[in-house]
Amino acid sequence: MPEQVGWGEGTTYPDEDALIAHLATLVDGSSPEILQGIGDDAAVLAPDLVWTVDPQVDGVHFRRDFSSPYDVGWKALAVNLSDLAAMGALPIGALVSLILGEGDAADAEPIYAGLGACARTYGCPVVGGDVARGPGLSVSISVIGRAATPPPGRVGAQPGDVIAVTGTLGESAAGLAVLRDPALRDLPGAIESIERHRRPHPRLVEGQALAPFVHAMMDVSDGIATDLRRLARRSGVQLHVDLDALPMHDDTPPIARALGLAPGVLAATGGEDYELVMALSADDVERCGVTLTVIGHVAAGPASVRFIGEGANDALRGWDHLA
Amino acid sequence: MPEQVGWGEGTTYPDEDALIAHLATLVDGSSPEILQGIGDDAAVLAPDLVWTVDPQVDGVHFRRDFSSPYDVGWKALAVNLSDLAAMGALPIGALVSLILGEGDAADAEPIYAGLGACARTYGCPVVGGDVARGPGLSVSISVIGRAATPPPGRVGAQPGDVIAVTGTLGESAAGLAVLRDPALRDLPGAIESIERHRRPHPRLVEGQALAPFVHAMMDVSDGIATDLRRLARRSGVQLHVDLDALPMHDDTPPIARALGLAPGVLAATGGEDYELVMALSADDVERCGVTLTVIGHVAAGPASVRFIGEGANDALRGWDHLA
Repeated sequence: MPEQVGWGEGTTYPDEDALIAHLATLVDGSSPEILQGIGDDAAVLAPDLVWTVDPQVDGVHFRRDFSSPYDVGWKALAVNLSDLAAMGALPIGALVSLILGEGDAADAEPIYAGLGACARTYGCPVVGGDVARGPGLSVSISVIGRAATPPPGRVGAQPGDVIAVTGTLGESAAGLAVLRDPALRDLPGAIESIERHRRPHPRLVEGQALAPFVHAMMDVSDGIATDLRRLARRSGVQLHVDLDALPMHDDTPPIARALGLAPGVLAATGGEDYELVMALSADDVERCGVTLTVIGHVAAGPASVRFIGEGANDALRGWDHLA
Repeated sequence: MPEQVGWGEGTTYPDEDALIAHLATLVDGSSPEILQGIGDDAAVLAPDLVWTVDPQVDGVHFRRDFSSPYDVGWKALAVNLSDLAAMGALPIGALVSLILGEGDAADAEPIYAGLGACARTYGCPVVGGDVARGPGLSVSISVIGRAATPPPGRVGAQPGDVIAVTGTLGESAAGLAVLRDPALRDLPGAIESIERHRRPHPRLVEGQALAPFVHAMMDVSDGIATDLRRLARRSGVQLHVDLDALPMHDDTPPIARALGLAPGVLAATGGEDYELVMALSADDVERCGVTLTVIGHVAAGPASVRFIGEGANDALRGWDHLA
């Protein structure tokens, strides 16, 4: 259960999304040049520029004892590139805002080294940067990219569509579990899972290839249990998902079992997969040219997600940064 | 004297600029679509889009006992708009990344209210936002704007140019001094100076009007003693500045005197003025249509700033976020 977020005179918000939705009502978000604003993975500037900003904060998005400064730099850029991937865009450049806490100055160089390695891997030049002292380490990166086709966003899933994902789910969460419990380190794939947790790989090529086919798409950052709820709400549809159909690396189910979880529950709630999840016509699953796994379908009905399969429970939730 | 910044194996950097310049060597910043990158107030995307990201961090850029959450929200957007002003651009939209420390949840609404008020005042829609928990309060905003003429940047000041500024300098620093020392609160203009410190007003209209005339331009965020050094370095010229010529509100010199400072020294080093400082032909000072004060001139010579006037000292420095 996520904590309630305190809000002034006794008002509370159930989660991060509710707080963000309320804050959005306090500002005017309409602009003739902005085609898509609050609610998607990134904003879209007319006609084809996609723009995102995402922070990575010490103790919230990463732990210093679990990730090296190099890993932190890699991930800070990778999560922004993943937002671009969800919009079918390729990067033009990144602006970096680095905040260093007391004693963090020696980390700036390895953070930038990791960030630079991710930037070279994905062809995203780092075109500006700022450094300031603060209460703790954080890296906020803003990325701009260009989309070859109209960016998909989260609105547009239609009854009759199938729901599909790229790659595998749950491996990053398995890696985090191994980092938390050294007793799990002897399980097969423990090291590879940790690596996946520390160095996410955004699906930029896949996102661009998928954009012309999908009706709605987003990246999986908080776990599909939370992320698909967002897609359901924005598209106004009911999503049916089979936990037993979630694609996983062979080593992930044994780690889930060691944690006492049904594998599909770990895969749906663990978060930080940075895969792409989408709604599209069943016919396009083969035609799109990207290897996908179908995990469910879209139905008419009140905006919600219904799970079937081992451990299914409609109250399943992924990661909430305010919890 | 700024502190030295520790850097790995015993290496230290004298200031923020040196650290940022070193970090820039670790990443590839070249891009066919980015016309100006690291080193200016904002990056320029071909052909006319200007893009910036700037954080406001609790205890570094603001103090909770000196500024209300509403003020913090206002200022977090205003400082980014000031970067746009320096590039002669008007805003298209802003993306907000809010990090809340323990117990800060009730501040999110007044922060957004202040941010929204600044956004409406300057016509900058807030098109996206994200909220996360962290070790302390910070607001990082990314803004995109459009320039009607090629953005000026910091390169281009030429020997023979005059140096000029908009508005007045030192009032924000006077306000901060009053906040620090309640004994100064009875001086004339104390309240107005505090207001100026809490709610900077970016020179967007002036920046757009000045862009076609100036050879180089930047906003005054850390104090001209530091900011003009940056301009001198990037343009490769020597700047001569008369501290007695710095424009000030009538109430500022008595506050400076009460602090034991020559008024021009407070005005040159206090920072957070968010005025524009520029190099342009003397003829254009009248023709540009913006009220300016000439404070010095550009000469050939090694990149540096030379001060004359009361309190002049070539070692004068403004605010360093790493000090």
